[in-house]
Amino acid sequence: MLKKYLEQVRTCVPLIHNITNYVTVNDCANILIACGGAPIMADDAEEAEAITTACQGLNINIGTLNQRTIPAMLLAGKKASELGHPVLLDPVGVGASPLRTRTAQKLLDEVKFTVIRGNLSEIRLLAQGTGSGRGVDASEADRMSDEEIIAFARELSGKTGAVIVITGARDFIVSTGQTAVVSNGVPEMSQITGSGCMLSAMTTAYITANPEAPFEASLASVCLMGLAGELAEAKRAERGDGNASFRNYLIDAVSQITSTQLEEGAKYVLG
Amino acid sequence: MLKKYLEQVRTCVPLIHNITNYVTVNDCANILIACGGAPIMADDAEEAEAITTACQGLNINIGTLNQRTIPAMLLAGKKASELGHPVLLDPVGVGASPLRTRTAQKLLDEVKFTVIRGNLSEIRLLAQGTGSGRGVDASEADRMSDEEIIAFARELSGKTGAVIVITGARDFIVSTGQTAVVSNGVPEMSQITGSGCMLSAMTTAYITANPEAPFEASLASVCLMGLAGELAEAKRAERGDGNASFRNYLIDAVSQITSTQLEEGAKYVLG
Amino acid sequence: MLKKYLEQVRTCVPLIHNITNYVTVNDCANILIACGGAPIMADDAEEAEAITTACQGLNINIGTLNQRTIPAMLLAGKKASELGHPVLLDPVGVGASPLRTRTAQKLLDEVKFTVIRGNLSEIRLLAQGTGSGRGVDASEADRMSDEEIIAFARELSGKTGAVIVITGARDFIVSTGQTAVVSNGVPEMSQITGSGCMLSAMTTAYITANPEAPFEASLASVCLMGLAGELAEAKRAERGDGNASFRNYLIDAVSQITSTQLEEGAKYVLG
Repeated sequence: MLKKYLEQVRTCVPLIHNITNYVTVNDCANILIACGGAPIMADDAEEAEAITTACQGLNINIGTLNQRTIPAMLLAGKKASELGHPVLLDPVGVGASPLRTRTAQKLLDEVKFTVIRGNLSEIRLLAQGTGSGRGVDASEADRMSDEEIIAFARELSGKTGAVIVITGARDFIVSTGQTAVVSNGVPEMSQITGSGCMLSAMTTAYITANPEAPFEASLASVCLMGLAGELAEAKRAERGDGNASFRNYLIDAVSQITSTQLEEGAKYVLG
Repeated sequence: MLKKYLEQVRTCVPLIHNITNYVTVNDCANILIACGGAPIMADDAEEAEAITTACQGLNINIGTLNQRTIPAMLLAGKKASELGHPVLLDPVGVGASPLRTRTAQKLLDEVKFTVIRGNLSEIRLLAQGTGSGRGVDASEADRMSDEEIIAFARELSGKTGAVIVITGARDFIVSTGQTAVVSNGVPEMSQITGSGCMLSAMTTAYITANPEAPFEASLASVCLMGLAGELAEAKRAERGDGNASFRNYLIDAVSQITSTQLEEGAKYVLG
Repeated sequence: MLKKYLEQVRTCVPLIHNITNYVTVNDCANILIACGGAPIMADDAEEAEAITTACQGLNINIGTLNQRTIPAMLLAGKKASELGHPVLLDPVGVGASPLRTRTAQKLLDEVKFTVIRGNLSEIRLLAQGTGSGRGVDASEADRMSDEEIIAFARELSGKTGAVIVITGARDFIVSTGQTAVVSNGVPEMSQITGSGCMLSAMTTAYITANPEAPFEASLASVCLMGLAGELAEAKRAERGDGNASFRNYLIDAVSQITSTQLEEGAKYVLG
C-alpha cells in the first residue's frame, strides 16, 4: 500500500519551502533531495510569501527561532494556508522556553497545518499545555501507555485538523479517524542531531506530493525513515563507524530505498 | 595549462571572506580548506568591512539572505572593490522572490565583481531580466543552445566586467573575449545541496590566488569540481553509498586531486 | 586518572546550551551527543535565559556573531553565572574585527567563565591585547616558547578565574596552579573547519558533568579530541579518504572511544 506514496514523491519532485533551524538545515536539504523532493530555504519576512508561493509545500521548524524568523513563519504559513499548500509544523523544543511555546501556539492559531510532528513531550505540551520537555528530546517523565498517547494525539488532531505524528521508540500517526503505530527504526537515530527535523522535512514532501492522503503519506514517510535507519545502522555496524557516519548512511539509505523495499520493509499496525 | 592555477592556490592559501547562506556554509568552509584556501565567515554589517580587509577575496552568496545580511554584503562588497580584492557573486535563487532579484541588482550596481557564477536560470535572469527560476535549480524551460547561452553570458560579462560561469550538465566560462565549455562532472552533483555554493567558494579562492587570470582560474576551478565529482561518484558507486556520502567524497576528492591529475583530467574546449 | 571524567559525562548526559556560529553548529551538536552529552541551540535574547536555566552548562562561541546574538550571549552568560553553571568561551577570530574583540572583552567583563578555549593567537589577544590573528587560525607570527605560552595563559587565568585551554600542534591546559601539555592529535585536524568549535562544545559537557574539577575535565576532553583525531586519521588513511570523511570519522571516534582507551591513549605531561 505504501509504495505509491513514495513513487508519487519521485514523480512530482515537490518543491518544499523550509523555514527551519540552522543546526540541521543542511541535512534537511539533503534528505529532501534524497527522497525525491527539492528544497528551498528562505526565512526573511520580506520574501517568505513569495518563496512559499513559488513552492508546493511548507515546512516550519521552530528550533533556533528568533525575532526575525517568527514573522516569516507566520507570513509564509498564512500564505500557504491561503493557497491550499500542505504545511507541516515541527515544534522543536516547545516548552523549553515561553518564546517557543507562545510561537507554537500563535502558529497553531493562525495557520492551518496538515501535519504536526514532534516527540512525545512536544506534542503533549501542544495538546495539553503540559509536559516536561528536556530541550529537544522526549522526557522519560512523559512516558505513557499507547492508549493515552493516541488519545491526546487524537484530541490535538481534532482541535487542529492536522495529522499528528509522534516519533520515539515507536512512532504514532494519528488523525481523528485513523491510527498507525510504526515499529521501524533503531535507537541509533537518537544518537545524532536531526532525525526528527529530517523526518519533518521529508514528510512535508510526502504530504505535498500526496495531498489527498496526508495520513497515508505521513505513514509512508515515517516507515521510510525508520527503514532507512535500519539499513544505515547495518552499514555503520558492518564498517565499524560511529554516529556521524550513521547520519550520512541514513540520508544515503533514503536516496537508495526503492518503493518495493519500502513496501516490504514497513512495519506498522493500523488501528 | 591548468595545473599552475591549482598550485598557486595551495601556495598562497588565500583567506576568503564568505557571506553565504546557512544551508551549505559548512561545506563551503570545508571545500575552501580542501582546495588549499582558508575560510572566514562573517555577516554582520558592523564587522563586514574589517573582516574583508583582513582577507584577500570575497564570496557573496544570496541564498537565505535577510535584512541583516544584505547591508553586510554591500559594505563588504564595496570595501573589497575599493581594495582591489577579487569578489564573486553567487545569485542563488535570484528570480524566486523580488527581494533576491532586487538585492542581486543592487549588488551588481554597487560592487565590481570579478566572477558571477550561477545556473542557467539565475544568470539568464541577471542578464536579461527574465527566466523561470524554480528555486535554486535551473529550470527546464530555460534550456537553450550553446550559442544562445554564450551570447547572453557575454552580454552580462560586457555589462559587469565579470567572468560569467554558468554551471549545469555542461559548464560555460565566458568573458568578453574568451569562452570555455567544460564537460567534467556527473549528474550526482545535482543530487546534493551545495554543489553550486561550494564551486563558488572554491572559485573565489582560485581567482584570489590568481588575480591576473580570472578566466583561467575560474576554468581550473570548474574543471576541478567536475573532476572531483567524477572521482566521488566512482567511490560512491564502488561502496554502494548514497547522496550524503557522495557529498563527503566530493570534498574529499578536492583535498586529494593533484595538479597533474587536474591537468590530465580536465575536459574543456576553448572557444 | 582521566577515565572517570569521561564516564561521568556518559552517566550525567549534561544538557548544554550552545550559542554558537552557524558554520560548525551541526558538528557541535553531533559531537556533544557523541561524547555523551545533549545539545540545545538557542540564540534569541528573548529565550536565552529560559533555555540556559533549563540546561546545566553553557557554550558561547563568537564565530559569526551578530547584533542579534550578542545580547543573547550576555543574557545567557550572566544567567548561567548566577545559577552557578559552568560556562565556556570560545573567542573565535577575536582580533579579526573590533566587533569581535569588543564582544569578547564585554563577555569577559560580565560573565564568569569556567574555561576559555582558543588558539594561540586568540588567547594571546585576550591576555595581552595583542596578537596577529589571521581569521580563525593561529598565526605563525604568534609562535613562542612553551614557557611564554604558559606564562600568559596563567596571567589570563589569574585575571578571569578560568581554566585556559590553548590548542595547536600541542595543547596547553593552564590554571593559576596547574599546567598540562597534551601531545595527542594529528595535523589533519586543521584541515577541516570546526575542530576547535567541537572541542569547545565537548569541553563544556566535560566541565558540566565534572563541576568540581574543571582543569582535569578540560584535560580529559582535550586528550579525547586528540585521540579521536589519531583514530580518525588512521581510518581516513586506510580508506584513502579526504578531509570531509576525516571530519565524520573524528566525531565517530568520539562516540566510540571507551574510558579505558582514553586512559591508555592520553599523552600529556603535568607541570
